[in-house]
Amino acid sequence: MGTINYSLSGMRDFNFLEVRKRNYIINNLTKLFELYGFSPLETPSMEKRSVLFGKYGDEGDKLIYQVLKSGNFLSKINDINTQDYKELSNFISDKALRYDLTIPFARYVVQNSQDITFPFKRYQIQKVWRADRPQKGRYREFTQCDVDVIGSSSLWSECDLISIYSDFFNIIGLKNISLNINNRKILEGIFDSLDIKTDFTSFCISIDKIDKAGKEYFYDFLDQKKCSKVQSKLIAKLFELKLSNSDKLQYIKSNFINEKVNSGVEELLFILDKTKSCKIDISIDFSLARGIDYYTGSIFEVISKDKSIGSLGGGGRYDGLTKMFGKDLGSGVGISFGLERIYMLLDEFNLFPKSINKSTDVFFVNLGEKEACISQKFVNILREKGISSELFPDCVKLKKQMSYSNKKNSKYTAMIGEDELNTGKINLRNMTTGDQELLTIDELIKKIKNE
Amino acid sequence: MGTINYSLSGMRDFNFLEVRKRNYIINNLTKLFELYGFSPLETPSMEKRSVLFGKYGDEGDKLIYQVLKSGNFLSKINDINTQDYKELSNFISDKALRYDLTIPFARYVVQNSQDITFPFKRYQIQKVWRADRPQKGRYREFTQCDVDVIGSSSLWSECDLISIYSDFFNIIGLKNISLNINNRKILEGIFDSLDIKTDFTSFCISIDKIDKAGKEYFYDFLDQKKCSKVQSKLIAKLFELKLSNSDKLQYIKSNFINEKVNSGVEELLFILDKTKSCKIDISIDFSLARGIDYYTGSIFEVISKDKSIGSLGGGGRYDGLTKMFGKDLGSGVGISFGLERIYMLLDEFNLFPKSINKSTDVFFVNLGEKEACISQKFVNILREKGISSELFPDCVKLKKQMSYSNKKNSKYTAMIGEDELNTGKINLRNMTTGDQELLTIDELIKKIKNE
Repeated sequence: MGTINYSLSGMRDFNFLEVRKRNYIINNLTKLFELYGFSPLETPSMEKRSVLFGKYGDEGDKLIYQVLKSGNFLSKINDINTQDYKELSNFISDKALRYDLTIPFARYVVQNSQDITFPFKRYQIQKVWRADRPQKGRYREFTQCDVDVIGSSSLWSECDLISIYSDFFNIIGLKNISLNINNRKILEGIFDSLDIKTDFTSFCISIDKIDKAGKEYFYDFLDQKKCSKVQSKLIAKLFELKLSNSDKLQYIKSNFINEKVNSGVEELLFILDKTKSCKIDISIDFSLARGIDYYTGSIFEVISKDKSIGSLGGGGRYDGLTKMFGKDLGSGVGISFGLERIYMLLDEFNLFPKSINKSTDVFFVNLGEKEACISQKFVNILREKGISSELFPDCVKLKKQMSYSNKKNSKYTAMIGEDELNTGKINLRNMTTGDQELLTIDELIKKIKNE
Repeated sequence: MGTINYSLSGMRDFNFLEVRKRNYIINNLTKLFELYGFSPLETPSMEKRSVLFGKYGDEGDKLIYQVLKSGNFLSKINDINTQDYKELSNFISDKALRYDLTIPFARYVVQNSQDITFPFKRYQIQKVWRADRPQKGRYREFTQCDVDVIGSSSLWSECDLISIYSDFFNIIGLKNISLNINNRKILEGIFDSLDIKTDFTSFCISIDKIDKAGKEYFYDFLDQKKCSKVQSKLIAKLFELKLSNSDKLQYIKSNFINEKVNSGVEELLFILDKTKSCKIDISIDFSLARGIDYYTGSIFEVISKDKSIGSLGGGGRYDGLTKMFGKDLGSGVGISFGLERIYMLLDEFNLFPKSINKSTDVFFVNLGEKEACISQKFVNILREKGISSELFPDCVKLKKQMSYSNKKNSKYTAMIGEDELNTGKINLRNMTTGDQELLTIDELIKKIKNE
C-alpha cells in the first residue's frame, strides 16, 4: 500500500502520552473551576445551521463545517440555483459543527432560562472545528476551555476570573505570565475624545493589529482617518507607557477626560484593588482592544513574557449576548484558556509531571502457563490494591517481553520462573535503576505503597 | 420569539448534574483500564470519506454524517450528474464524522505500526455520530467506550477483559449482571454440522434476531432453509439449555462433534477456568451470535437480569481487522461499554453517589462591599485549602441569595454581617439540616476537613 495518506489536514490523533498531557491541563482547569463554584456544561457537537450562521461575520461563516442532510438531500430541491454553492448549501445542509463554545452557551441559556438560577456560572471544555488554514499551533479541530458568569454585572466576577488565571498558571508552574487588562469603556472614551473619521469597531480592530503589523500601522491608520497629530501623539504615548498601573491610570485621567474614561478607570481600580493578593502579574495595557465586537467592559489577555507565541487566554465582559436568541439575560463576563499553546509551553519548559509517561506499575513476563497462572494471581492482588499491573499475554522470548516492558515504560518488571514457583517469591526489576530483588507479594505491595 | 426550537433531534445538552454523572462512569472506566495496563488513544472527530465508507455495510453508510468541503464545493464539478445525491455527495464532501471507534482505531494502528509496541492495549472513550432514527436510549451523538488488545491471540486477554467487566459493575454497584459468553468457532462448527441451504453470516444474523423476533422466527428460518426436523430440535435444545456451564459444554460435546466445536469448547474452558475468581456471573449462551461479521473467536455480551434494556456492553475476538488498511497486524479482542444504558440503570436504581449533586462547599452571601471584602478573604483561604467556595457577586435581597444557594445545592451558606464584622466570626448554616453556628475560619476549615 506504500504511503497512502489517511490523515485529514489540521486534525490530530493523540497517543497515550499526548492524551495524558492534555488531560493534565484539563483536569487542573476543571478542579479549579469547581473550587470557584462553577459547574460544567456540555452542548452537542452540531447545532442547527440557523444557530451558527451569521454570528461570526462573513469570514467566520466561511470557516464553519457544514454537515449534509441525511438521505437524499436533493429530494426537495426544485427551483434552486444549484450552481451557486452558498445558496445550495442552505438546502442540502441543515446543521453544522460547533465553531466556538460561546454561541452554543448563549443558545443553551436562552432555551433553559426557566430552570437556570442566575447568575449562571458555567465552564465548558469541548472540541470546536474551524475550516481554517492549518499552521503551527493552529488546528481544524481543537479544544476550547471557557468559563463564564452570566446574569450579573458585578465586578467581583472579574476578580474571580483573574484569580483563576493566577491560580492556574501558578499550579502548572508556568512563570513570567502577564495578565494584561483594559476596559472597553476607556477605549470608547478615548475614541469619543478624538476627531476622527471612522467607527469604533474599526478603531479597535486597527489597535488589535498593532501586535502583528507594528505600531506604525496604527499611526498610519489614525493619519488616514484624519486624526490630528496632537491627538495621535497623545495616544501613542498612552499606548507606550512604561509605568506602574497607578501611574498609567493617573496619566489617562489627566489627558483623556470624559465620563466613559472615568467609568472604565473606576472599574479597573476596583478590580486591581480586589486582586492584590493574586500571584499573577497584572498589567494595565490601554492598547489592548480584543477586536470581538461584543465586549463592553473589562477585557483581559494572558501572555507569556518568556516566549511570544500569542495569547494563552483572554476574555472580557459583554452585554446582551443572549439577545440574538430573543432574550436578554443580562451582562456576563468570561475568559478562556488556550489549551494548545499552554501545552506547547509546558512541553518546551519541561513542566509536565515526570510520572506522566509511566504506564504500568508492575509488568509480569509470561514464562509458560503454570508460571502465568501464578503471575496472574499476583496481578489480581495488585490490582485490588489499586496498583496497576498486567501479565504479558504470550509466552514468547524473554528478550521480546523485556523490551516490551521497557518501551511501555513500566516501573517494574516482575518474573515468576521455576525458582519463584518453588519459593513463592517474585523476582522484581526496577526498570529505571536496573536493581533486582526477590520479594513476597506483601513486601512488593508495601514497597510500592511507600514510594 | 415564542417557541423556536433550537435543538437538533437526537442531540443533547448535558447540564452540570448530567455531566457529573457521565463523568462518574467515564472516570471509573478510565481508572480501571489504566489499572489493567491499557493506554488512552484519541482520534479526530472526522475521517477522510474513504476511511469510513464501505466499512459498515450499505445500511451503515447511510447513517454516516458527511461534511461539506469548505469554500466553493461546486468549483471542480463539471460532468457530474448532480441529480443523483449519492454520486454528488462523493464530490462535494471529502470527510465524514466518526461512526464508531473501531475503524479509526484500525486506521491509527496501521498508520503508526512502526512506533507501536505490540500487543497494543488501548482504550478510547469518545463521541460518535449516527444519522439514525432517535428513540429512547438511542441518540445521534453518543459516547462509545472501547478497550482492545491487538497483536496477540492469547486467551489471557479475554480473561482480562472479562475481569474488567466484573470489576466495573462491582465498583459502580450494579447487581444481577450476567456476562454471556460464546465462541464463533462453536457456531461455525454447529453450522458445518447442519444440512442447510444458507451461509454462515445469515445463520448468525437470524440467531441474533431471536431476542427481538422470538425463537419461532429462528426455527421458521431453519425450516425455510431446509434444515431437517431432527437437527432443528437438537439446536432448539442447545439454545434453551438451563444447565450449569460445565453441563452445557458436556451436552454440546456429545451432540455436535467436529474440530471447530472442539476448538471453541477448549477456548471456553480455558477462559472459564482462569476467571473463576471474577465476581460477575459468567454464563455460556450458545445462542449468542453478535451479528457483526468480523468476530472469529470469543464473543461476549453483558446484560442486566433486573431490567431488559438490551446489552450493557459486548465484544469479541476478531482477526485481520487492520487488513482493510493494507496491513495485517494480527488477532485482536475488544469489548465496549454502553454508557447511555449504564447511566439509565444507575439513575433508576439510585446508584450514583449521593454527593454528585452537591456544588459549592461554602457559599458566602453578599451584604455590602465591606462585608463582601471580608467574605472574599475567607473565600480565598478556603480555596487555598481545596474547599470550594464562592461569594455571591451582587448585594441583593438576602432571600434571593439564600434561594440561589439552596437551588445550587451548596453544602453550607456563610454570612458575614455587622456582628460578624466585629467578632471576626462566620455565621454558618448547614443547608441540609438548617443548623446554624458561629465559627472562626480555622474552626470552619477543621469542620469541613473532618467531614
